Amino acid sequence: MSNNQPTAAILIIGNEILSGRTQDLNVQFIANKLSDIGIILVEVHMVQDDEDQIVDSVNVLRKKHKYVFTTGGIGPTHDDITAPSIAKAFGVSLKRSAEAFDMIKRHLKKKGKVIKNESAVMADVPVGAELIKNSLSGCPGFNIENVYVLAGIPDIVKSMFENIEEELERGEKFISKNIKVFIGESAIKDILQNAQDKYDKLQFGSYPFRENEEWGTVMVVRGQNPIDIEEAFLELKKELKKYGINFSEV
Amino acid sequence: MSNNQPTAAILIIGNEILSGRTQDLNVQFIANKLSDIGIILVEVHMVQDDEDQIVDSVNVLRKKHKYVFTTGGIGPTHDDITAPSIAKAFGVSLKRSAEAFDMIKRHLKKKGKVIKNESAVMADVPVGAELIKNSLSGCPGFNIENVYVLAGIPDIVKSMFENIEEELERGEKFISKNIKVFIGESAIKDILQNAQDKYDKLQFGSYPFRENEEWGTVMVVRGQNPIDIEEAFLELKKELKKYGINFSEV
Repeated sequence: MSNNQPTAAILIIGNEILSGRTQDLNVQFIANKLSDIGIILVEVHMVQDDEDQIVDSVNVLRKKHKYVFTTGGIGPTHDDITAPSIAKAFGVSLKRSAEAFDMIKRHLKKKGKVIKNESAVMADVPVGAELIKNSLSGCPGFNIENVYVLAGIPDIVKSMFENIEEELERGEKFISKNIKVFIGESAIKDILQNAQDKYDKLQFGSYPFRENEEWGTVMVVRGQNPIDIEEAFLELKKELKKYGINFSEV
Repeated sequence: MSNNQPTAAILIIGNEILSGRTQDLNVQFIANKLSDIGIILVEVHMVQDDEDQIVDSVNVLRKKHKYVFTTGGIGPTHDDITAPSIAKAFGVSLKRSAEAFDMIKRHLKKKGKVIKNESAVMADVPVGAELIKNSLSGCPGFNIENVYVLAGIPDIVKSMFENIEEELERGEKFISKNIKVFIGESAIKDILQNAQDKYDKLQFGSYPFRENEEWGTVMVVRGQNPIDIEEAFLELKKELKKYGINFSEV
């Protein structure tokens, strides 16, 4: 892993996640996107719709990482407090954005509706923020310094991420190769340890799974140098053969 | 919400979550369990298989909350470093537990296998820890002070949680009722705000969804007093009727 690879954190905001009502899907989506563009996702926080929690987490994470991505809490209702909380974290005020107001207005117009005060609140963003468009619901997210504030709905997160992806500083793309063995982790422990010792720039992982009452393991090689990965992968397969362990590439 | 309600945090440990390889399912499972027994899940951290990250997060979270539940990193391979990291967080050493060794040995014996060094490492737990059994793979988790260290595999998490549920201090169970409306959030914003102002001990949430190209909203009333919830729910329905908004209970 190169030392100046950009790092990131995600902050998931929403009572619905902490109450168990909603299964978060945004961490995995953003994680895969970041992996593809060589940004290391180092940590994730999930907090309630609570000003203190949001302010504290944003201020911790934005100082530690190149990028912070937040999801959730930018709708129009009383429990949507992400925008004012982010403003507070940055010590700036919240201001109605004429550009955001227009986006929401245009989107509603297409659906034969007019913008009312109830929707207009979604045009309030911290002073200094840039808008992040989404094609799905019209209401923008925003970016202030290194913090990208996205919606909570997975489809809108996808749409917003498409619109910011280009501007993010990229590192070397992460790639991974997988081998599936129908044997428990313990049996391939030494093989993996030896591989990890030899290739210290690659990450070797092992993830147990259960199929038809039997335990198996997926062995993963992950890194940024395709030649190293290919070489390490061949060696893993050679070792598995040597010990008579059946495997398949997945 | 009563003031002395027990609170909790979850710490999800694993490169496979941060790399996007694996969709976490443990947060929602544990969140629902805690909700059922009246423990408030306040926050979640997700970190890599990294000693510093694990030690820092555990030490922050265990001081803030009645309970911390960790998942992941207790297998036998080189990337499983949760047990030594938890020991370090508590300033104690790691010791092979004869009881854990026996559990693993018995489980392997049932499958016609003998315990080897490769598996025995899973019997190493921090000094002072109590074991948490699981019926699925034989390898125990452990509990030290207010920290419960569980496996990463969702089925094993479920099995382990069953074995600790009884010993957790309970608060008043959370319950929730939902109303589905086929209209955007903005239209029901005031109704929810008024309800929230009136019932300050309940939480009102609104969660947009999309079905057949149309936006709808699920309105949620959540709290601990069934009578208040029923009353607030009736009022919400009355208000929706007043404004001619169609709804269904879900």
